[in-house]
Amino acid sequence: MSHLVKKRKLDKTRQDRLYFDSYTDVTIHEEMIADHVRTNTYRMAILNNSESIRGKVVLDVGAGTGVLSMFCVQAGARKVYAVEACSIAEQAVNIVKQNNMEDKIEVIRGTVETVDLPEKVEVIVSEWMGYALLHESMLNSVLYARDKWLKPGGIILPHKAELYIAPVSDPVVEDRLHFWYTVKDQYGVDMSCMSDFARGCIMNSDITVNSVHGEDVLSHPARFAELDLHTVTVEELRSVKGKFNFESFGSAAVNAFCVFFTVTFPCPDKPQPLVLSTSPFKPETHWKQAVLYLDAPVDVVQDTVVTGEISMFPSEESARHICIHVDYTIGEHKRQSKTFSIPDWSSGAQS
Amino acid sequence: MSHLVKKRKLDKTRQDRLYFDSYTDVTIHEEMIADHVRTNTYRMAILNNSESIRGKVVLDVGAGTGVLSMFCVQAGARKVYAVEACSIAEQAVNIVKQNNMEDKIEVIRGTVETVDLPEKVEVIVSEWMGYALLHESMLNSVLYARDKWLKPGGIILPHKAELYIAPVSDPVVEDRLHFWYTVKDQYGVDMSCMSDFARGCIMNSDITVNSVHGEDVLSHPARFAELDLHTVTVEELRSVKGKFNFESFGSAAVNAFCVFFTVTFPCPDKPQPLVLSTSPFKPETHWKQAVLYLDAPVDVVQDTVVTGEISMFPSEESARHICIHVDYTIGEHKRQSKTFSIPDWSSGAQS
Repeated sequence: MSHLVKKRKLDKTRQDRLYFDSYTDVTIHEEMIADHVRTNTYRMAILNNSESIRGKVVLDVGAGTGVLSMFCVQAGARKVYAVEACSIAEQAVNIVKQNNMEDKIEVIRGTVETVDLPEKVEVIVSEWMGYALLHESMLNSVLYARDKWLKPGGIILPHKAELYIAPVSDPVVEDRLHFWYTVKDQYGVDMSCMSDFARGCIMNSDITVNSVHGEDVLSHPARFAELDLHTVTVEELRSVKGKFNFESFGSAAVNAFCVFFTVTFPCPDKPQPLVLSTSPFKPETHWKQAVLYLDAPVDVVQDTVVTGEISMFPSEESARHICIHVDYTIGEHKRQSKTFSIPDWSSGAQS
Repeated sequence: MSHLVKKRKLDKTRQDRLYFDSYTDVTIHEEMIADHVRTNTYRMAILNNSESIRGKVVLDVGAGTGVLSMFCVQAGARKVYAVEACSIAEQAVNIVKQNNMEDKIEVIRGTVETVDLPEKVEVIVSEWMGYALLHESMLNSVLYARDKWLKPGGIILPHKAELYIAPVSDPVVEDRLHFWYTVKDQYGVDMSCMSDFARGCIMNSDITVNSVHGEDVLSHPARFAELDLHTVTVEELRSVKGKFNFESFGSAAVNAFCVFFTVTFPCPDKPQPLVLSTSPFKPETHWKQAVLYLDAPVDVVQDTVVTGEISMFPSEESARHICIHVDYTIGEHKRQSKTFSIPDWSSGAQS
């Protein structure tokens, strides 16, 4: 609620403390385990890769409650190192015991950048994806683990991530802007002039995490970036960008772009790899979509062309916070640009 | 999400800045205007008191968008001073113009403690109620205005506030604690030991703002405090307390108390005064109810007696934050006590 509170730079230790503190509550773990698309896709992916996992050593980066580590034991892993920096690691220890997997899973409390493993690993598994894929920068830790602990020829689950963007017409925003025109009929007071103020507040430069419905997406989404987890570097993650080009399905008022991602798991025995998708055309996940509101709605008709470029980079105030810059041209309108960032609620990083 | 982040004392200026900043966004004003119970009860109360308002001077404390000031003009006020500290006052100026009431309503930007009015007033109107009635301490400002600006014999709308408490059984908590027992069937991993951890996280000492359903209330609510706005003092608000005594309707697991309030308006022409109620037995308002979770559920049967004492007082860290202390005895169980406070999300006052 306090979007005017000035931000200040957070030192790295404080950023990390706020980040790890946010995982000490049960709610986020409940949300993740209850996200059936997420948890079941990981389970299927791990079980489908049992040929690569059976008898092997696995590193689970950011293990949380340890659920992925236990799936790896179900897939035949000889040993799993479950690395978790936050106090939820204590619960992971209890759960591992309750499932009689103490001999297979070693829960290690610490950051993957500082822990010392007794051996290198053949498999890295991690559920590192944040809002808009890169918020929280946890992929950096996975890459660090890859470079330090993964044996040559080892596998990473998932092994690929892709980012998409699409123009949308969010009807909730239209309703909220229209609301101020309805006050007069209800209370005899004309508040329609509030609609402009409301537009400025709602169509702001926050990255809004929201569920977008498939029917509100105005064109085929464009894939603008692909990350191969075997080769991508931390340096490359400092600027992830790409171009997009849409043709509108029909007449509508574009009021936002939405950004979403997929991650892909190898599936040796199947014709298709296994994909965990956060597309608005697929069943909802706890990631929903990242919605970037334009300053004002823009009308399009069928085949109106929307082109542009999008780049994602860490915030200067806090390296764990993602920013998104979009340059875009809608039809004959002049080129616009807008930079978005994740508001402070997301990690309690208010100052 | 970061309930472990240490609190520190906020100085008064910073408290006020965070408090007033929280009203600069449109969302809170939209929520308040769209709360039909709130806005319409105020409208009815003001129009029903038109005999006391017609030709008189009114002070609107914390006017926001100015809607109550405009209702007062509809009721015949000669002049309304709409005092508002936050930048929403700029919107109030626009709205007043749009309704051609510039000659009647003077929007004054500032706190009621610092503004200078050209005259004393016959009527004070204010919508000052926070979560659990007293969160945000805005009533203090109304009392300050009363003592400084209200003429002898003037009226205050509303003129009375009452606080209630009732024992409840929140089924959402039961579902969330049970969730961890369902994981094994879904994913083949037993996570039932997480239920205890979940109970500690969910049944914590936060004042939770939640909608309680009437059917989850386990006895008649008890009124534990009544504030007469014509006589109550700021000193008395530093500790608002009372006793309660319930008899359970039937068998259930008590897992919380809920606190709610009513405010009452005089209604000269009607047999009954007009009451704005936030009871779980009445239509929902944006205040919902304040829910105070016990450390663990306690079973009761029909006629089990629950007795105790509740007190509300400002937090030591921030005077605008309310704390609630409850001492209670359920049936034959031993006396328990627990102190609750509003978590940091409520005013962005994280440090």
